Amino acid sequence: MIMDVPFYDADSMKIVWHGNYIKYLEVARCDLLSKIGYTYLDMMDEGIAYPVATMELKYIKPAKFGQKLRIVSEITEYEPALYIKYEIFDNETGEKLFKAKSMQMCIDAKTGESIYSAPKKFIEKLEEYA
Amino acid sequence: MIMDVPFYDADSMKIVWHGNYIKYLEVARCDLLSKIGYTYLDMMDEGIAYPVATMELKYIKPAKFGQKLRIVSEITEYEPALYIKYEIFDNETGEKLFKAKSMQMCIDAKTGESIYSAPKKFIEKLEEYA
Amino acid sequence: MIMDVPFYDADSMKIVWHGNYIKYLEVARCDLLSKIGYTYLDMMDEGIAYPVATMELKYIKPAKFGQKLRIVSEITEYEPALYIKYEIFDNETGEKLFKAKSMQMCIDAKTGESIYSAPKKFIEKLEEYA
Amino acid sequence: MIMDVPFYDADSMKIVWHGNYIKYLEVARCDLLSKIGYTYLDMMDEGIAYPVATMELKYIKPAKFGQKLRIVSEITEYEPALYIKYEIFDNETGEKLFKAKSMQMCIDAKTGESIYSAPKKFIEKLEEYA
Repeated sequence: MIMDVPFYDADSMKIVWHGNYIKYLEVARCDLLSKIGYTYLDMMDEGIAYPVATMELKYIKPAKFGQKLRIVSEITEYEPALYIKYEIFDNETGEKLFKAKSMQMCIDAKTGESIYSAPKKFIEKLEEYA
Repeated sequence: MIMDVPFYDADSMKIVWHGNYIKYLEVARCDLLSKIGYTYLDMMDEGIAYPVATMELKYIKPAKFGQKLRIVSEITEYEPALYIKYEIFDNETGEKLFKAKSMQMCIDAKTGESIYSAPKKFIEKLEEYA
Repeated sequence: MIMDVPFYDADSMKIVWHGNYIKYLEVARCDLLSKIGYTYLDMMDEGIAYPVATMELKYIKPAKFGQKLRIVSEITEYEPALYIKYEIFDNETGEKLFKAKSMQMCIDAKTGESIYSAPKKFIEKLEEYA
Repeated sequence: MIMDVPFYDADSMKIVWHGNYIKYLEVARCDLLSKIGYTYLDMMDEGIAYPVATMELKYIKPAKFGQKLRIVSEITEYEPALYIKYEIFDNETGEKLFKAKSMQMCIDAKTGESIYSAPKKFIEKLEEYA
């Protein structure tokens, strides 16, 4: 088998590869949902899922190894779909490095059908959190 | 050291995690640039780089293991910045699974300063290719 | 949320991060199983799985972006467990870059119990292939 | 461009893909080196590097999303090469999930030549730490 070395596997200059930010957004989103008290595991229990439908990413300044990142995430809408916006800052200097917005549709995990309202339990948790 | 298992490391249902599409876009972009005859290695040789500045992703239907993907990518503009649009299809059914748009700025690799015109050699290669 | 930039997300010197080789081994293994005619999808159909139990990795020379890799993989034993050995070469110079050995146990996908014999269909395919 | 969906991008059953453990080992190693007071950044400053030369991995029980992992790592030798052993436990039950051993060679970052002794500063830090 012959393969090329993928560019994303061999990034240079100690700079974080742009695709890796999506992992940091997911870690931040899981952290936010956990603080709200309604995690992906709760979703599974209720037979729903929130797959990512769209994502907008804006790279301002590259993150580097040795840097501590502060990620601020906030739910801006939850019906008819879940919108979250994110900002990543250098934790020391406060400099903004990145921002993003994700849209997630609520779906029935079995049928895949869209549900345009948020689960009751999620709304309750969101109201407590706010 | 205590850590949580990241959600992106433990995806379910044989569905491709949404963050992985950025890798496929990069493979497609490298393939496109290689066909044009002006690769990331050529950029390095000329002392420039094309970091990704913005990205818009639209997930239509999830890709799965066992599926062959056809990725169509096209340069839509190259000055003052490089715009590429991408579409991913199921190679068998032709069904569209995903689309995206990336914007990359040309910068001086040493100083990091933006360059609003494309390198001469790149333009020549683009014209030959078109 | 505050997080460190992980070192594996910010590798330097255009060198492939050592953890990425496991992906290449998996691609090679899937390719080998597909040539044999008994893939992970066939395993799922038969209600079994072959999780990796041990792995030994030896890094000889780093792979770099722009390099084409030739990966040679071979099944050395399939009972009581599946042993595969791998070698990665620079496709141009023939230089050996890496070698590895994996051991995978056959298990019942539902109960998780070990099965010390290979599935009949797998053995037939292996004999045809050899 | 046509590509297969890689198996490692589409893992099933909420189980962590076996290749991801190498990331956890690296996070644990960076954490250990940071506690010792001699990080990868210090190595770069001194013009040396510690690339991974061999790695042995043993998968005992799969990690899952929702699980907290405790990673215990320990330097067992540092001359003529650096040996670290790792164990990963479920942080709640204490059950052992995984163990590994890595060997890293000290090299001159410029020439790539092996150095069979550890840097003085590293040894001092190791002695303080122990």
